[in-house]
Amino acid sequence: MSKEINEKDILKGSRRALAKAITLIESKREDHRIEAQELLEKLLPKSGNSIRIGITGTPGVGKSTFIESFGLYLISKGHRVAVLAVDPSSPISGGSIMGDKTRMEKLSQDDSAFIRPSPSSGSLGGVATKTRETAILCEAAGYDVILIETVGVGQSEFEVASMVDFFLVLMLPNAGDELQGIKKGILELADSIVINKVDGDSVNLANQTKAHYSGALQIIHPTSFWKPEVQLISSLENRNIDGVWEMIERYRKEALENGELHQKRTKQNRDWMHKLIAELIDIKLKQHPDVKEELPVLLDKVTEGKTTPYLAANNIINLFLK
Amino acid sequence: MSKEINEKDILKGSRRALAKAITLIESKREDHRIEAQELLEKLLPKSGNSIRIGITGTPGVGKSTFIESFGLYLISKGHRVAVLAVDPSSPISGGSIMGDKTRMEKLSQDDSAFIRPSPSSGSLGGVATKTRETAILCEAAGYDVILIETVGVGQSEFEVASMVDFFLVLMLPNAGDELQGIKKGILELADSIVINKVDGDSVNLANQTKAHYSGALQIIHPTSFWKPEVQLISSLENRNIDGVWEMIERYRKEALENGELHQKRTKQNRDWMHKLIAELIDIKLKQHPDVKEELPVLLDKVTEGKTTPYLAANNIINLFLK
Repeated sequence: MSKEINEKDILKGSRRALAKAITLIESKREDHRIEAQELLEKLLPKSGNSIRIGITGTPGVGKSTFIESFGLYLISKGHRVAVLAVDPSSPISGGSIMGDKTRMEKLSQDDSAFIRPSPSSGSLGGVATKTRETAILCEAAGYDVILIETVGVGQSEFEVASMVDFFLVLMLPNAGDELQGIKKGILELADSIVINKVDGDSVNLANQTKAHYSGALQIIHPTSFWKPEVQLISSLENRNIDGVWEMIERYRKEALENGELHQKRTKQNRDWMHKLIAELIDIKLKQHPDVKEELPVLLDKVTEGKTTPYLAANNIINLFLK
Repeated sequence: MSKEINEKDILKGSRRALAKAITLIESKREDHRIEAQELLEKLLPKSGNSIRIGITGTPGVGKSTFIESFGLYLISKGHRVAVLAVDPSSPISGGSIMGDKTRMEKLSQDDSAFIRPSPSSGSLGGVATKTRETAILCEAAGYDVILIETVGVGQSEFEVASMVDFFLVLMLPNAGDELQGIKKGILELADSIVINKVDGDSVNLANQTKAHYSGALQIIHPTSFWKPEVQLISSLENRNIDGVWEMIERYRKEALENGELHQKRTKQNRDWMHKLIAELIDIKLKQHPDVKEELPVLLDKVTEGKTTPYLAANNIINLFLK
């Protein structure tokens, strides 16, 4: 497969080479995995020159419409935009939800946009690892805005927040005393809450919502240099889409100047490496023939009160590391 | 040290032997650790014949007063009660907070009670592991009610919930629209919310609080056989202390009959063993001379974009498991 992928073609912006490289990354074959990592290592020095934006929000909040409006706006400003998703059930994966074909129709036809549905499965590090690696490829291919979308299945918002520079939570105008199905802990991660569908009758309600969340965000984020902002937009009427971008640019400028962007990315990469080490060890542990044989026996002994969890764990370690 | 500890003395209920065995468990010396595990293994078949009750609540909620009243009530019913704590800063650790000497004064003087402050530090598995192991010793020594208390530092409530049969959250009467400083996720673990200090003027407020939390608990726990209950008590006036025990006895009876108690303990022991395996491996990894040398180098390379987190992680694994 590698013979077909030339990293120069990716750097030149070939969509075909990029798509093939992503397929290579998503492959489960061990030899593909090694090839993919070699390719990534070559492209790493050419990556990182983008702003990575995470976008989450419950179904119905208008994520696709927002990404379409936002993406087209960015392209009109001369940017190249990649849209990735971490959830297999994400709308941009296409086809799974009625009407998907019409989602992001204009954006998907634009030469300056690259839309990639989420990997349907992931081995090591899960689908999130594939998305991280795909983002690197997209950056090397010259996309300078990477939008990573999640509908929030399982831990996916947390995973997305741990791979982006700026994390944006989409919400609807509402009375503000409920969290709109947003998981606990998500607001702590938000760099901005963007209230969508602020059109027609909902303008008053949206202002109340804004006041409510502005207060909440101030309590949650007391120490960061960045004070998370609440933005009111209408994706349908293209209202304040520029305001969202102006905010993100302001964030990037400040975070570059005070070094927090660099620090954030460094921490993300280190954490990711530690996570991969733990996962790789766990895989090796489960594959170890002696451990495979003894683990169920020892678990039963622990269950029956015949040995202590500590002694059983110690036994496993001795088999594994002998 | 082992020569001084005879497991028969523990089984006979000797406080001195029990206290020595706990000291052995809390020792950081490797030879003590092995001795302690051998002792635990011998005593395991004699443990488990208790009900383990976790108790949490923010400072000021009256945990010590509750434990004193509850413990004395249990003793009056013929039970033997052990009180353990997981947090080094816990009130029962004694001395650290003004007035501690008078806390649980009657209970601490009763021959049927055994009160043990939390270990001041823990190596493997943290202080929570020591508390788990101490609970086993106490059961072998004939204590049939084990109360494990936490003030809720760090992850301690979650740790306590993962080692007890029944988890009880103490609260104060209040309007009910705040969580009284209780961490998110704690209510999901509660088998009961016990509202303390329901005396004098606070009775009406307490009824509102009860209605509020009863509703919340029903939403949170939709599937378990057990419907968490809200109890109103006054530790000071000894009101409804018997109601709390009646509830726990009812829980135990049902959970024994439908097998959930056995399942819960089995799962707790297995999870604990898996956690210890992961921790033991992590210790060995960090001690490995090659890993020690290469890890910082590879972390820097990842930071500088010279290699991918995957390749770096793979390198570490190869050094560790070669």
